[in-house]
Amino acid sequence: MTTVAGRTFGSDNHAGVHPAVLTALASVNSGDAVAYGEDAITEAAIARLCAAAGARTGYLVFNGTGANMLALSLLLRPYEAVICAETSHLNVDECGAPERVLGCKLLPIPALDGKLTPDLIATRLSGVGDEHRVQPRVVQLAQATELGTCYSLTELRRIRDFGRAHGLLIYLDGARIANAAAHLGCSLADIAACADVLSFGGTKNGALGVEAVLVMTGGLDAGAQYHRKQLMQLASKMRFLAAQVDALLDGDRWLVTARHANDMASRLAIALADVAGVRLAHPVQSNGVFTEVSRALADRLLRDWSIQEWSETADGKRCVLRWMTAFDTTVEEVESLVAAVSRAAADSEARTAG
Amino acid sequence: MTTVAGRTFGSDNHAGVHPAVLTALASVNSGDAVAYGEDAITEAAIARLCAAAGARTGYLVFNGTGANMLALSLLLRPYEAVICAETSHLNVDECGAPERVLGCKLLPIPALDGKLTPDLIATRLSGVGDEHRVQPRVVQLAQATELGTCYSLTELRRIRDFGRAHGLLIYLDGARIANAAAHLGCSLADIAACADVLSFGGTKNGALGVEAVLVMTGGLDAGAQYHRKQLMQLASKMRFLAAQVDALLDGDRWLVTARHANDMASRLAIALADVAGVRLAHPVQSNGVFTEVSRALADRLLRDWSIQEWSETADGKRCVLRWMTAFDTTVEEVESLVAAVSRAAADSEARTAG
Amino acid sequence: MTTVAGRTFGSDNHAGVHPAVLTALASVNSGDAVAYGEDAITEAAIARLCAAAGARTGYLVFNGTGANMLALSLLLRPYEAVICAETSHLNVDECGAPERVLGCKLLPIPALDGKLTPDLIATRLSGVGDEHRVQPRVVQLAQATELGTCYSLTELRRIRDFGRAHGLLIYLDGARIANAAAHLGCSLADIAACADVLSFGGTKNGALGVEAVLVMTGGLDAGAQYHRKQLMQLASKMRFLAAQVDALLDGDRWLVTARHANDMASRLAIALADVAGVRLAHPVQSNGVFTEVSRALADRLLRDWSIQEWSETADGKRCVLRWMTAFDTTVEEVESLVAAVSRAAADSEARTAG
Amino acid sequence: MTTVAGRTFGSDNHAGVHPAVLTALASVNSGDAVAYGEDAITEAAIARLCAAAGARTGYLVFNGTGANMLALSLLLRPYEAVICAETSHLNVDECGAPERVLGCKLLPIPALDGKLTPDLIATRLSGVGDEHRVQPRVVQLAQATELGTCYSLTELRRIRDFGRAHGLLIYLDGARIANAAAHLGCSLADIAACADVLSFGGTKNGALGVEAVLVMTGGLDAGAQYHRKQLMQLASKMRFLAAQVDALLDGDRWLVTARHANDMASRLAIALADVAGVRLAHPVQSNGVFTEVSRALADRLLRDWSIQEWSETADGKRCVLRWMTAFDTTVEEVESLVAAVSRAAADSEARTAG
Repeated sequence: MTTVAGRTFGSDNHAGVHPAVLTALASVNSGDAVAYGEDAITEAAIARLCAAAGARTGYLVFNGTGANMLALSLLLRPYEAVICAETSHLNVDECGAPERVLGCKLLPIPALDGKLTPDLIATRLSGVGDEHRVQPRVVQLAQATELGTCYSLTELRRIRDFGRAHGLLIYLDGARIANAAAHLGCSLADIAACADVLSFGGTKNGALGVEAVLVMTGGLDAGAQYHRKQLMQLASKMRFLAAQVDALLDGDRWLVTARHANDMASRLAIALADVAGVRLAHPVQSNGVFTEVSRALADRLLRDWSIQEWSETADGKRCVLRWMTAFDTTVEEVESLVAAVSRAAADSEARTAG
Repeated sequence: MTTVAGRTFGSDNHAGVHPAVLTALASVNSGDAVAYGEDAITEAAIARLCAAAGARTGYLVFNGTGANMLALSLLLRPYEAVICAETSHLNVDECGAPERVLGCKLLPIPALDGKLTPDLIATRLSGVGDEHRVQPRVVQLAQATELGTCYSLTELRRIRDFGRAHGLLIYLDGARIANAAAHLGCSLADIAACADVLSFGGTKNGALGVEAVLVMTGGLDAGAQYHRKQLMQLASKMRFLAAQVDALLDGDRWLVTARHANDMASRLAIALADVAGVRLAHPVQSNGVFTEVSRALADRLLRDWSIQEWSETADGKRCVLRWMTAFDTTVEEVESLVAAVSRAAADSEARTAG
Repeated sequence: MTTVAGRTFGSDNHAGVHPAVLTALASVNSGDAVAYGEDAITEAAIARLCAAAGARTGYLVFNGTGANMLALSLLLRPYEAVICAETSHLNVDECGAPERVLGCKLLPIPALDGKLTPDLIATRLSGVGDEHRVQPRVVQLAQATELGTCYSLTELRRIRDFGRAHGLLIYLDGARIANAAAHLGCSLADIAACADVLSFGGTKNGALGVEAVLVMTGGLDAGAQYHRKQLMQLASKMRFLAAQVDALLDGDRWLVTARHANDMASRLAIALADVAGVRLAHPVQSNGVFTEVSRALADRLLRDWSIQEWSETADGKRCVLRWMTAFDTTVEEVESLVAAVSRAAADSEARTAG
Repeated sequence: MTTVAGRTFGSDNHAGVHPAVLTALASVNSGDAVAYGEDAITEAAIARLCAAAGARTGYLVFNGTGANMLALSLLLRPYEAVICAETSHLNVDECGAPERVLGCKLLPIPALDGKLTPDLIATRLSGVGDEHRVQPRVVQLAQATELGTCYSLTELRRIRDFGRAHGLLIYLDGARIANAAAHLGCSLADIAACADVLSFGGTKNGALGVEAVLVMTGGLDAGAQYHRKQLMQLASKMRFLAAQVDALLDGDRWLVTARHANDMASRLAIALADVAGVRLAHPVQSNGVFTEVSRALADRLLRDWSIQEWSETADGKRCVLRWMTAFDTTVEEVESLVAAVSRAAADSEARTAG
């Protein structure tokens, strides 16, 4: 059991729910509503979200794994595969859900800062037409990536165009799409236009628990409602998922909260980069800060904070720690964290020197 | 799009959320909490629920399909099958999730009032040991059943004993277990003791969206946490699922709400049984009332109410309609429904006579 | 371990391989041939078979389960289901392969003599468009059926037309299609024209082990080669499967052997029907004879013969035994069997009387 | 369509069937035999093979993909994963069968000459106990590997011991285990003792089509017969698979044929290594020779021979071609190939120089 006092910086999932989301839940809680999304509240919320993204249709689901599985279900036949970054959430952190639930093979590629490029994707196309090989069909991109980086719109468009030229569909995992839009200063539709299907994440951005699968390209949502039900993602009291979407869309709250989280990450990154013994492992382009530190410093920080050790160098001497900010992280909390890391780093250096 | 004015009687899922549940959500919304259930709130809620059921371990999930799939995942190898009533939710209303997600075959049995018996179960055991046949391993019971009936504790124990004698495990689908406990006047533990694994439903009983999978028998929860993640049922902000469980357990609210819903169903059933042209199709032992009416009356009622046509007689002349009550159904609403059905029945009879 | 002296009548799979098939294997065994079916022998054999059936494309596989799984893979999306007779091999004797390998739900229907009709199929269409229900997409027919009966061409065409009118595809399981063609006195193409995809069985009709999946309708074989590989049905030394097909096609051997087996079954049926205490359970329209006898007589016959007890009446007093003939069954063997059954029946009756 | 004159060197699957295998097929073709392996011929052949390998139980299947899937089915729960070499047949050439059929994730590792080591395996164990990660459970080794190399017995034992220490089971893909035994000069049992489950390949070594799954460790074959049936690998006329095994075991024919194929590969390798412009890409330790040549020479050879381009260097200037020998490759054929490659290499060099 882990009790938590104050801010953990361990995950944007450690944060609570935005007060406006709780208010929205209460506001739709009167009288009956037809279940499973056939109610006016849900239909209006989906229409709003689709309008914002330029999407044809949308489907609300419970969580990110559900969104990823539903989206890929729409795009794949049994012998088709997904090209993705080796470090992607899909490849690493879904406990093999794509393989078990979809029966599909992933074709992972080592990728700098977690970002694919047309050249990298091309390395996975050699078996096309060979009956002994799975057939690549989908390129999965995360925006922002699992390493806190973002594709520029130009980079996204190049991949989309490469995909079209090679018969590949684009699935964009948008668990942190709000952070990407905030970083790029672009609209949701700007990013969505580079995908055939994408997810829109709410949970990491102040919602209690809601994600949406948005379909951009005609013909890809055939049977989506059956897939969602089979994949255990059909909420009965759907209006309470829809209300969360509404709360995020009101006054562009999704963008405001993400911009704040990004700002806090940026502030944190600038300060940590100045601490002796701490190096930034990746560009900070959303709400995650990845720092490379010595093994000793890492051990100290892992003891004090509910954060994740991300990776370790082959020699075991240094490792990467991830710090995440959220919609409700405060400047004071960031400063307090920086002070604590600075102290730990100084101690660690002193011990090493001594 | 279906807008709803007032009570629908279409489903206990049409109801909103119990105010105490919303209050509980707000009460846990302060500060960070470690994600994915490793927080104190979740651990305490699960401990409370396990204590109430006499269960070894428990896992919170998003919805009933998720609970059914997670539970069966714990019990089945790939060549093992599930014996169930032909009318069960598992067989009819999961859109083939057991087959797709678990790859398992169901062995459905026509069963009076939706209830299995040892004799019925025995009819499905003939292929044991034959490599051409799936091997029966699990008996799935719903308590209450999809037809609103309940097994008595004696009936449950007979099935459990039969199962033990024949190497069969019992999975009890408890989406409406609260209604069953209220009907039987027994404890949660009394029912749970007849199962190897069961689900405890919250959503149909005032929660926003939470179900629990409870493991009664040692050794059956190996790897449950991985199954839950793969099956897309791992909530990141788990404390908000746990808070719902707490709200239902406080002051035995789960039982109080279910008892109220049952009382409303009972009142409705008694009144409808007196309406000319309306016949009760099954004993009313929880919060569902199944009425058999003429095709003409059914059409009229289906036009006016967001309810489900359950089944039709082979000659197409009569059909069964389902009316569900919920934790917040009022006496006035029941009376208003009865009056409306009476009017419709009288009109229908007049037209037929005329 | 079961050693067998002489003819078992237990299965057409108990028979050996037709000498012409062994000769054909030897005849293609010279020099190298490109593997996996890209050799001239295979391409020619498939072309011959497709010409005989009027099929667009064909795929050789190892066995009947493989043929069924490959065929259904071509026809189904994950949320689509297969309507079939409750007694079908697919439902009963594939050990749940459709559920495990394809993730698909079967919708079985009790059917007289194992034969579906449009009216029976219609009973399974009520959930169309409901996201909580699997969507019926395929009607599976076996020709001949598992109970030794055949659809007339008129019956097949009615089902095909019904299917077209309701968006259903027809998969015809032709493990014993040769016996059906022999019984109906029609061509392979006559039967095949009633299906969208069918299998052509060789193994039960004198081959060592080969079945073919034949695609009649355009657009249904997309990706078939990948499905076959994934489903473990791609033979490396394919020419030796193709040679078996050639041997069966030479001089219409497939039809000659099936006609012989049917004749032996017919002779057997006529004789057994005259034995006191033996009743034919189904019309004999291929190479299987199903006899209903008393429990006592059944026990005696099951002791003496490597045959299958097919089913038992609810009261346990009578049961159905299956007797199968094969391409190499002789008149003497049939007469010998009849004599043995007659003796056993007389003994059994004597004991009952005494 | 590819017609083949003489020896292709494209695959050991291009070869025909050993005459002794055809003879064996004919020798068991008299009278009935109970189907599905419950006959004396099959039981004896499996007993012989198990005795040779020191295995507890064995299961005959149709092909290598089937053997791999059945073996892994015995070892894995749904959330468990397989560590394998990136170049393994399992990862590259099964068209995603492990993912589709077993729902399991592979954890591939780049490995010199296609061989894993304890250190390499250890790199894949970091997520043990983390519910977001698949749990490594099986190490898959091919012996010989897909690159024609062999593990020494010492290397195998180190991996087995490492596996035992870390809760990992060993599956040894023995599609070419005969070639490995011939190379190492060891017994089948010596290799088998390093695995928990292994396959024994017949098809690439003179059989028409048969592989065996052999279980070395107690408790791992629970339900194997059901898995085999579901996985479409249960032959009805099993005695004809068993006869092939017998033919390979008679007089250690499996070893004699493999030794011959290895000798031809060795002779080929020695000669090709002397050709200017040809470099051996991997040690030649079985019946495959991998040569690195210029793009131009490769194109010429790929035009003339039905062989496979294995891989290409990143700059596209050189690539690796695979040459396989078989049980029936002759010295003359090898010499003829060497002469042809020498001519092509000389031409190619002349053109480059010119």
